[in-house]
Amino acid sequence: MQIAALVFPEIDQMDLTGPFEVLSRLPGARFKLVWKDLAPVRDANGLILTPGTLLPHAPEAPDVLLVPGGRGQLALMDDVPILEWVRSRAAKARYILSVCTGALTLGAAGLLRGRRATTHWNSFQLLSQFGATPEDSRVVIDGNLISTAGVSAGIDGALRLAALLAGEDAAMRIQLEMQYAPQPPFSAGTPGQAPAPIREAAEAAVAPLTEARLEAARRATSRSWSS
Amino acid sequence: MQIAALVFPEIDQMDLTGPFEVLSRLPGARFKLVWKDLAPVRDANGLILTPGTLLPHAPEAPDVLLVPGGRGQLALMDDVPILEWVRSRAAKARYILSVCTGALTLGAAGLLRGRRATTHWNSFQLLSQFGATPEDSRVVIDGNLISTAGVSAGIDGALRLAALLAGEDAAMRIQLEMQYAPQPPFSAGTPGQAPAPIREAAEAAVAPLTEARLEAARRATSRSWSS
Repeated sequence: MQIAALVFPEIDQMDLTGPFEVLSRLPGARFKLVWKDLAPVRDANGLILTPGTLLPHAPEAPDVLLVPGGRGQLALMDDVPILEWVRSRAAKARYILSVCTGALTLGAAGLLRGRRATTHWNSFQLLSQFGATPEDSRVVIDGNLISTAGVSAGIDGALRLAALLAGEDAAMRIQLEMQYAPQPPFSAGTPGQAPAPIREAAEAAVAPLTEARLEAARRATSRSWSS
Repeated sequence: MQIAALVFPEIDQMDLTGPFEVLSRLPGARFKLVWKDLAPVRDANGLILTPGTLLPHAPEAPDVLLVPGGRGQLALMDDVPILEWVRSRAAKARYILSVCTGALTLGAAGLLRGRRATTHWNSFQLLSQFGATPEDSRVVIDGNLISTAGVSAGIDGALRLAALLAGEDAAMRIQLEMQYAPQPPFSAGTPGQAPAPIREAAEAAVAPLTEARLEAARRATSRSWSS
């Protein structure tokens, strides 16, 4: 059970660690953090994460290709060697799991054309730029492509994926082991649920980043991939 | 906003990274991973985490003392210098947050006597060893002590704590930013919800560890703390 997860500077750490908590508990799991070099990187809020595998050494046909998001995902949308690596692994992966704005990386790699997909609510309107069919669900499964909404949604997506990979009993056991019976203290986890002033403040704080992502999406879709 | 989080070998990484995702988003947050040395450690399933602060250099009166659990927590229950450090920081911390079996570390440090507390379902019966009043809730708040159930419950506890520290609007904004509107795929996150064979298999897998924790609890309660 080979899991290859892209890690990069200014990742949102839970996009990676949420699915790690689930998928690393699968029988025989080998979970690799993959990047250009093996120096530690910091997530968007400073947590140190350490890659263990260089891009060319990652499994060529992983059971899972995990593509997380976060602020640092923007740079990947113009990083053609990274996008080519994502394309090469996605082509042979059994499943692809994007979390949060990781979906935009898949989009920039040309992998969302004609596929149903979701992403963080604040970037949801960008999905159509990539030829995807946006679907406003927490987890969207289209063939072997599983995309999730923002950050914490990677836990739900990974549990769905665990059931596909190892059966529902195995997934339920993982859910029990991590005591995942969540009780959010507020009804504020989606833009529809949160009070309007809170939603507007959250939108305003990332508006420049969202605009930069839109521009990166436009550049990305002007590229043509050879295969 | 000083947050001091104990990190150690074979921690369960989500016990730390769940609260990190929430609390590192608080205004002015400075989140420190604290341990005996600064060499990277591996969590129970292999994720590399890197401490940034030595025990004596950690804030003496942190706003939050975070005590995570996981398999490696067992060794801490006999590690008197660690228990003394926990006692020293707990004495001056504004809030103490234990996640999962981190509560057993607090118990071994003599900090649960007469307090209501919870922990991972599989260790719940050990709480009374420490003179605690076990309360079967996902998050238990007793004065400045916040304890949570297993692993993923740290997210809920941290959001409750964020509201105490910075107000409900700030906590709701964090919940929205991390799109925390969970949709667990199964009803299996507590021992009461999970099918009996799955619960029994999960219990059996950790029975030796649970027994070792009971023995460590008995040793710990035979110690007397000077203050």
